[in-house]
Amino acid sequence: MTVTLSQKFIAELFGTFVLVFMGCGSAVIAGAHVGNLGIAFAFGLSVLVMCYAVGHISGCHLNPAITISMWSTGNISAKDTVAYIIAQILGGIVAAALLFFIAQGKPDYSLAANGLGANGVEEGSPDHYSLISGLVSEVVLTMIFLVVVHGSTSKTNQNVKFAGIAIGLCLTLIHIVGIPVTGVSVNPARSIGPALFVGGRALSQLWIFIIGPIVGGLIGGGIWKLYDRK
Amino acid sequence: MTVTLSQKFIAELFGTFVLVFMGCGSAVIAGAHVGNLGIAFAFGLSVLVMCYAVGHISGCHLNPAITISMWSTGNISAKDTVAYIIAQILGGIVAAALLFFIAQGKPDYSLAANGLGANGVEEGSPDHYSLISGLVSEVVLTMIFLVVVHGSTSKTNQNVKFAGIAIGLCLTLIHIVGIPVTGVSVNPARSIGPALFVGGRALSQLWIFIIGPIVGGLIGGGIWKLYDRK
Amino acid sequence: MTVTLSQKFIAELFGTFVLVFMGCGSAVIAGAHVGNLGIAFAFGLSVLVMCYAVGHISGCHLNPAITISMWSTGNISAKDTVAYIIAQILGGIVAAALLFFIAQGKPDYSLAANGLGANGVEEGSPDHYSLISGLVSEVVLTMIFLVVVHGSTSKTNQNVKFAGIAIGLCLTLIHIVGIPVTGVSVNPARSIGPALFVGGRALSQLWIFIIGPIVGGLIGGGIWKLYDRK
Amino acid sequence: MTVTLSQKFIAELFGTFVLVFMGCGSAVIAGAHVGNLGIAFAFGLSVLVMCYAVGHISGCHLNPAITISMWSTGNISAKDTVAYIIAQILGGIVAAALLFFIAQGKPDYSLAANGLGANGVEEGSPDHYSLISGLVSEVVLTMIFLVVVHGSTSKTNQNVKFAGIAIGLCLTLIHIVGIPVTGVSVNPARSIGPALFVGGRALSQLWIFIIGPIVGGLIGGGIWKLYDRK
Repeated sequence: MTVTLSQKFIAELFGTFVLVFMGCGSAVIAGAHVGNLGIAFAFGLSVLVMCYAVGHISGCHLNPAITISMWSTGNISAKDTVAYIIAQILGGIVAAALLFFIAQGKPDYSLAANGLGANGVEEGSPDHYSLISGLVSEVVLTMIFLVVVHGSTSKTNQNVKFAGIAIGLCLTLIHIVGIPVTGVSVNPARSIGPALFVGGRALSQLWIFIIGPIVGGLIGGGIWKLYDRK
Repeated sequence: MTVTLSQKFIAELFGTFVLVFMGCGSAVIAGAHVGNLGIAFAFGLSVLVMCYAVGHISGCHLNPAITISMWSTGNISAKDTVAYIIAQILGGIVAAALLFFIAQGKPDYSLAANGLGANGVEEGSPDHYSLISGLVSEVVLTMIFLVVVHGSTSKTNQNVKFAGIAIGLCLTLIHIVGIPVTGVSVNPARSIGPALFVGGRALSQLWIFIIGPIVGGLIGGGIWKLYDRK
Repeated sequence: MTVTLSQKFIAELFGTFVLVFMGCGSAVIAGAHVGNLGIAFAFGLSVLVMCYAVGHISGCHLNPAITISMWSTGNISAKDTVAYIIAQILGGIVAAALLFFIAQGKPDYSLAANGLGANGVEEGSPDHYSLISGLVSEVVLTMIFLVVVHGSTSKTNQNVKFAGIAIGLCLTLIHIVGIPVTGVSVNPARSIGPALFVGGRALSQLWIFIIGPIVGGLIGGGIWKLYDRK
Repeated sequence: MTVTLSQKFIAELFGTFVLVFMGCGSAVIAGAHVGNLGIAFAFGLSVLVMCYAVGHISGCHLNPAITISMWSTGNISAKDTVAYIIAQILGGIVAAALLFFIAQGKPDYSLAANGLGANGVEEGSPDHYSLISGLVSEVVLTMIFLVVVHGSTSKTNQNVKFAGIAIGLCLTLIHIVGIPVTGVSVNPARSIGPALFVGGRALSQLWIFIIGPIVGGLIGGGIWKLYDRK
């Protein structure tokens, strides 16, 4: 009944594949039909359903900012941290590739015009927000996300079975608010996959969506430590 | 307190009736009012509510792709598999018939113009996706669905009581992303009922929505076996 | 720690007040902003939240069709059945009165033009559905509703704590599909209150929304008995 | 394992920060994209996720109307009541400041034209509702909210683990119905922060959103006492 690291690796890879394929897929394939609210539910429900599908194996991080924050609070070993991050980035890349393949089956799809749900600021931001607003937004939203991740899964929390609902719907909440600013990353693995295919500005601004979420996640872990029981 | 096969048969028949009547009904009766997001919630909530209404009797499959995948992993007997599939197909046919009856009470309804929520590719796809994109989409979306079905109901999963929420909302997620491609089947019983009434292209393309979900469901069961505890 | 009948009476009266005030209020005050999907969530979430607020006192019926169906399956006494129905009808009337008071504070509100969320068929149906489609729709939707109510609260169901979520979201599902047909009643108490204030067609068609839900609810109880464990 | 008052203070401050930043943020940053339904989910999901993130520390009030109603029913000491209210008001002010900073990164944002999600009646009401309708609406909606808060967390309620879902989705419900009337406060801390930055009418009408919710919350606590087990 022991879980091996390779089982955790597959769980994180497949889970992040689902998050990026369905989240970015909702924007690329269905965005014109479902709007930002539909995209927000797609990202959040991807995490919610995977929490109950693979959470008992890997904890369902699906996000390097979560894994690094969990490492900073001593919840995961250094070795597992590295393996998780590799799995998450691979899952995001496979998701972007498969999404690109399916999207090409639409008569008027073009990568240049429709993209793959990449994140951005300034000309790459849906509502043309500045770089500083975009970076602060990613830091603050990931901070909130990680307080919810740590708090809802805390050993002192009697409602830990509901963590998947809270964490998934927190990602929905974050997308409702933040899509106009950067398209919302709060997750380096979610940004890397699409950026590799889209290139250009998506690649040159990628650092924002790696640094911002990691810094925000570390701050969120610190805030959680301040208020939770020792 | 034993559950008989005929009780399971009624549970699967009625449950699939609800899924097809309410899911396709949301498209036919209410699609112009609630959009793809409303249709996505209708399909998903149908499964969510039936999981808590009949799940303790039959497991609430409502879908031959689930039943066959569950048979492939040894979770259901061959005899029950056949009975479940017959019940599911019957439930879908009754649902399509009743939906057709109610829809005719709208002054400007016509089967040719408004259909019954049938699935399709190319000219039958909402956004005119190609056959290959439609088939790959059905395989991938059903694969994701079955990983969530197996993972959330796994004997090694401590949160199995939340499976109904995870599985139902996974179907909502799948519809948010996939409606523009094929209208989303991921369930042969959901496609057969409407196709029998609509005929034409819905019937000639029906094989896609039988083969695609079954193949995807078998792959999903295999992925689940790779990562779950032995 | 015993619950008295007057405590149950208050719970049913207040709960039905919330359902009718918030459900019909979402249509009258907010319908132009949130659409049918928002109205569907308002009705469903009203029941979901009251299930967890008063369910431990009265069982949270809030609906004569539920109470009568529960009486038909032996889950409630005749005396309580009468008291529940009186409380539910009173709660719906108070809700309609208070909604009318608040709506009048909008500069361009008029009872004749904007109504109070009353149900109807033919000229009273949002999409002008026929009387027979409207009646069949109310019977079928209430039948589905009561299967979910009985099944999710069954003594043989291990997930009974989730019944409030299943029942509330089932009402959301029913409204997503059925609003274009009759505005959705499935609950005589929800129809009586508004009809008393609106009068005219709302009153002359009121029988549909009393007979339809009661008949559908009794059929639903019968279907549940067919499949559940003895 | 004891929780100190300063830990509760941080939990209430951070939780109310999330509620006001994300709730008002959804209106200011994303309102044109997600509509009232998206804003309603943002407010409700903020409370839902924080209930599972900080509920085990402070009870997750995030609202002086809840804290005062809980004090009136003997669920919280006078000392904690004062500390909670200070933390909540501070959290709301920090949220308004940070939201203002991020919003300024949008090219065409102006505080005068776009505001910070402040509440209002008459010219300050989205649909220009009268002062009396606005005040009655705030009292009634907070009354409903507090019945759900008290009922779902009652010591006699076996489903208390679901309280976070019920309370969060009740706030979503309240916003679906009430945004056109006042923008919905039901929470003095949610109104004070934005009003301090917006000034003018938001400040002169602020008394409505302090008195209304507190009175409604006290009535809600009284109704709950009438029906719950002794």
